[in-house]
Amino acid sequence: MQRYFIQQASIPLKLQLEPEIFKHAIKVLRLRVGDHFELVDTQQQVAEMKLIAIDGLQATAERLNVSKPQVELPVNVTIACGLAKNAKPEIIVQKATELGAARIIFFQGEYSIARWQPAKMEKKLQRLQKVAQAAAEQSHRTRIPAVDFYAKLSDLPFRDYDLKLVAYEEAAKEGESHIFRKFTDKLLLEKRQQTPNLLAVFGPEGGISAAEIDFLQQQGCQSAGLGPRILRAETAPWYLLAALSFALELG
Amino acid sequence: MQRYFIQQASIPLKLQLEPEIFKHAIKVLRLRVGDHFELVDTQQQVAEMKLIAIDGLQATAERLNVSKPQVELPVNVTIACGLAKNAKPEIIVQKATELGAARIIFFQGEYSIARWQPAKMEKKLQRLQKVAQAAAEQSHRTRIPAVDFYAKLSDLPFRDYDLKLVAYEEAAKEGESHIFRKFTDKLLLEKRQQTPNLLAVFGPEGGISAAEIDFLQQQGCQSAGLGPRILRAETAPWYLLAALSFALELG
Repeated sequence: MQRYFIQQASIPLKLQLEPEIFKHAIKVLRLRVGDHFELVDTQQQVAEMKLIAIDGLQATAERLNVSKPQVELPVNVTIACGLAKNAKPEIIVQKATELGAARIIFFQGEYSIARWQPAKMEKKLQRLQKVAQAAAEQSHRTRIPAVDFYAKLSDLPFRDYDLKLVAYEEAAKEGESHIFRKFTDKLLLEKRQQTPNLLAVFGPEGGISAAEIDFLQQQGCQSAGLGPRILRAETAPWYLLAALSFALELG
Repeated sequence: MQRYFIQQASIPLKLQLEPEIFKHAIKVLRLRVGDHFELVDTQQQVAEMKLIAIDGLQATAERLNVSKPQVELPVNVTIACGLAKNAKPEIIVQKATELGAARIIFFQGEYSIARWQPAKMEKKLQRLQKVAQAAAEQSHRTRIPAVDFYAKLSDLPFRDYDLKLVAYEEAAKEGESHIFRKFTDKLLLEKRQQTPNLLAVFGPEGGISAAEIDFLQQQGCQSAGLGPRILRAETAPWYLLAALSFALELG
């Protein structure tokens, strides 16, 4: 069933569709009176809705039932990626959203070839935020990851995180295979009152520099290997998210 | 370091580069005399090579040392995907190769929108096989996954596999979360003399039909959920491979 997010804390019994939802549901999907769809509010509640009237540029739906499904990872994962070229940020955002990321940060890495012009920054972030929203709707999530950009790695909000790692190719080459597992064991064993926050940093295509690794280690990020094969910049965050889901959600 | 596969059982002490490797190493990467690269033979041995002469359209390299790194998943995973549209097969092959698949099969699913014309089949498979080779070189693997196409799901070689599953959206929706973990537990606990073979079947974008699920279950495939979020057709096999790596290679 099609799902849309709305910026309201709860969903009323009767609702007139917002223009953007109207456009997609009525003009693109051609839903008709009697058809169902879902709305997600800002409290992560999901309402099943039924279209009861379509009239020119307006449509009204009634609420059938409300649920609060548990479909979010039990850890808030922030993926921080060195800025990558071309359309890569879009596919990183799309897949990281499907795989459950809570937040996606791009930063200007020392070896980033791509550069975002300050004048285009806002538009690029808006575009990526839309990609995140569409992917969250499609994957039936109940929250949309926030997408941000930091010009400097040192501006990242390291203090907000309980667990911090950096995926480091050199660590993987040297056979490092324990750190990430230690993190998932910790998440499984420790019962916290609040959802823990995990930060995972990934380099751009050119990798992460020795100076950046030093800095990240000073901030408490542990260098982790993600298996013995060399993963591309965009694949490594997906590996991490899939593995976290496997470790924490299956079994 | 750049890596190339060659179709020889071992690498001689001195070697003249094949035309395709010559083209890439000398013309594209512009390697010079003294530069190093790696060759992988059909026995999964990796030789570090040094260029000792470049002369017109020929180049010679000498072998420095040979190793046999363990970078392959300890289970032979075949990913069987319903044929997807446009460039999706390429990205499925590229990422599944990075993530360690042993074999990638496309099949004409009941809900596959894409169709391959028989006349174009060979060319399409050749193209995908090249994508697999490039991804295997880039991710520093020691084997190239084979890429195949089956017009009928029923033609898949089910008997070749010790463990068989189908990623089923309906199972995931109903909260199924044990089957895949049972597989990884089994792989961890059982010590086999031969590398076990695992088959994982994934539907195309439109999903897998009830009739296909019935057939797959008759062939011994268990319906597995891969977490509570709905994954796109191409994302589900990557999730499975990343989770297998996490379960079997990290810790």
